[in-house]
Amino acid sequence: ADVKKIAVIAGDGIGPEVVAETEKVMKRAEELFGYRFETEHALFGGIAIDEKGTPLPQETLDICRSADAVLLGAVGGPKWDNNPKELRPETGLLGIRKALGLFSNLRPAVVFDCLKDASTLKPEVLEGTDLIVVRELTGGIYFGEKFRRDTEQGQEAVDTCAYNVSEVERIVRQAFEIAQKRRKKLASVDKANVLETSRLWREVVNRIAPEYPDVELEHVLVDNCAMQLLRRPASFDVIVTENMFGDILSDEAAMLTGSIGMLSSASLGEGSFGLYEPVHGSAPDIAGQNLANPIATILSLALMFRMTFGYADAADSIEKAVSDVLNAGHRTGDIAVDKSKAIGTKEMGDLIVAAM
Amino acid sequence: ADVKKIAVIAGDGIGPEVVAETEKVMKRAEELFGYRFETEHALFGGIAIDEKGTPLPQETLDICRSADAVLLGAVGGPKWDNNPKELRPETGLLGIRKALGLFSNLRPAVVFDCLKDASTLKPEVLEGTDLIVVRELTGGIYFGEKFRRDTEQGQEAVDTCAYNVSEVERIVRQAFEIAQKRRKKLASVDKANVLETSRLWREVVNRIAPEYPDVELEHVLVDNCAMQLLRRPASFDVIVTENMFGDILSDEAAMLTGSIGMLSSASLGEGSFGLYEPVHGSAPDIAGQNLANPIATILSLALMFRMTFGYADAADSIEKAVSDVLNAGHRTGDIAVDKSKAIGTKEMGDLIVAAM
Ligand SMILES: CC(C)[C@H](C(=O)O)[C@@H](O)C(=O)O
Ligand SMILES: CC(C)[C@H](C(=O)O)[C@@H](O)C(=O)O
Repeated sequence: ADVKKIAVIAGDGIGPEVVAETEKVMKRAEELFGYRFETEHALFGGIAIDEKGTPLPQETLDICRSADAVLLGAVGGPKWDNNPKELRPETGLLGIRKALGLFSNLRPAVVFDCLKDASTLKPEVLEGTDLIVVRELTGGIYFGEKFRRDTEQGQEAVDTCAYNVSEVERIVRQAFEIAQKRRKKLASVDKANVLETSRLWREVVNRIAPEYPDVELEHVLVDNCAMQLLRRPASFDVIVTENMFGDILSDEAAMLTGSIGMLSSASLGEGSFGLYEPVHGSAPDIAGQNLANPIATILSLALMFRMTFGYADAADSIEKAVSDVLNAGHRTGDIAVDKSKAIGTKEMGDLIVAAM
Repeated sequence: ADVKKIAVIAGDGIGPEVVAETEKVMKRAEELFGYRFETEHALFGGIAIDEKGTPLPQETLDICRSADAVLLGAVGGPKWDNNPKELRPETGLLGIRKALGLFSNLRPAVVFDCLKDASTLKPEVLEGTDLIVVRELTGGIYFGEKFRRDTEQGQEAVDTCAYNVSEVERIVRQAFEIAQKRRKKLASVDKANVLETSRLWREVVNRIAPEYPDVELEHVLVDNCAMQLLRRPASFDVIVTENMFGDILSDEAAMLTGSIGMLSSASLGEGSFGLYEPVHGSAPDIAGQNLANPIATILSLALMFRMTFGYADAADSIEKAVSDVLNAGHRTGDIAVDKSKAIGTKEMGDLIVAAM
């Protein structure tokens, strides 16, 4: 088979541990299905600040650009939280998204059976929840002009939120296409009663919608969406929205599943290139202690296999192995009911490899 | 006693009905406590569009300005949803906030015992939830410059989000003061890792905080707040945030209580002036049928008595009457378990008046 190049960014906190287990899974997929992967490790985030003086070294960008996909563990931690802007892990995150053209962030929020009780929502409300938030990732207020100026009322800070027609069109088309492969429902979220960018957004959605007649479209105001996610989570299929709203709603959606430690995400650009990472953070408090749950990162690899490489067999095998291991009762500390029986990061990785 | 002037805006949908019951309560407070209120009705929202050709007629503004407080029912409805911007109820809402200088929106989210089960959250998670969102209401992206321009990528829409030091200072001070009278915890919500306005916001909060040493302060990123509200709602006391984040988070907070049909809100300016309204909308589907629940509007009047007039006795009397009536088992359709036993809007109003 042709060799696929994967840039591997372990990052900070528990990142290196969960990525190490995921690399074992990658190797096992080579053995089982005959695929070939070549990995190249790159520094990014806090560790890159410490070792290279910047969260996103040029070398890292080069490695990512020459790869077919990127696997990311986690970045950030309190150590860098009070750094000036250019020396913060988040700045690296925004930079890599822009530099790699990753305009779309897919965050599936699904409920894992074994974690149903971990949700703060009632089980009957959660029943059947399986949605995906498609978040625009390289536009809006995140990337608009920002500045300060003096006024008579003291210093003023300004952020600019801008969207043009093609930026909206590409993400909305992608969302429609994803909906077509799922339950064929799309909720487009905006604040069209207040924002000009939202009015443009809604115009574009309405213009494109007739090209996807099989998809049922609803427009939902962002404040209402924050409520409806709580009231009827199972009624959503695909939610598409702009960068800032997507940041808030995808976290709300992830949390309501109770499965946040198990969720994976994909950030996609043009073509098949993508960056895959767990939804959870770098959890510095448990780093380096063989306590982290590697499942979200392992499932991010499965997502990469499916979306970037079209390796459905390997993706299926990983996903089935994860659910077999969970069904057999194995748990890391974060998802264990009886903490005394919890297994470690490495043991979880090994069990999944063995179950593939 | 001196006469207090109250501007009454019944508005659209169920607005007139719930306001009518609230006016009965107002009269009863005059009889019981010797207060004197003079009311003046004003057109606003959809009905003002229909009758005056604008959602916010000058006369309405004049009536509000000459009053000590405003009572608002509800505005809006599908009838006006596709109107051009100047002819939409929301435009009136934004206009009245700005014109009356209502820079602060207080949205208490409390759980009514009799409605605990109406929440989609587990009762043990909800237990003890009693928080208030203090939302900045006349700044930020709602009121910044908005425009379109042509670019090579097609038309572009732009919204501007701006905050100056004094705008942040006044709302943050108010939030600290509210926290001092409650459980002394303040969560300031921003997106300081991305937005310049949020960085200014956080600087101001940190500069002011030492003046309120008895209040425990935490900074929470908006995406994390959307999650924590779901995970640990009871741990929040006062949440202060900017306009757009406040719109989203206050709706999320209201919905998680399960009591959204019962929640009141206050929009305050300098001094004691305020506009009081229920959190719920105009519910056009049940309008004019004696089906609406007047409790949120009646409790908004209690909030007015307490916050604008300092009439704690009358406010207490109303709040106690509401809980007595609920404890006696009376319910409007929206909160009734057995819908066949539900009572109407007028009956609920009469019962509360009788219980005062
Ligand atoms: C760290 C931060 C800049 C980032 C964002 O807001 O995009 C994060 O919250 C995320 O969702 O990936
Ligand atoms: C109707 C709309 C403009 C308004 C807002 O966003 O402020 C509403 O959602 C609210 O919260 O009062």
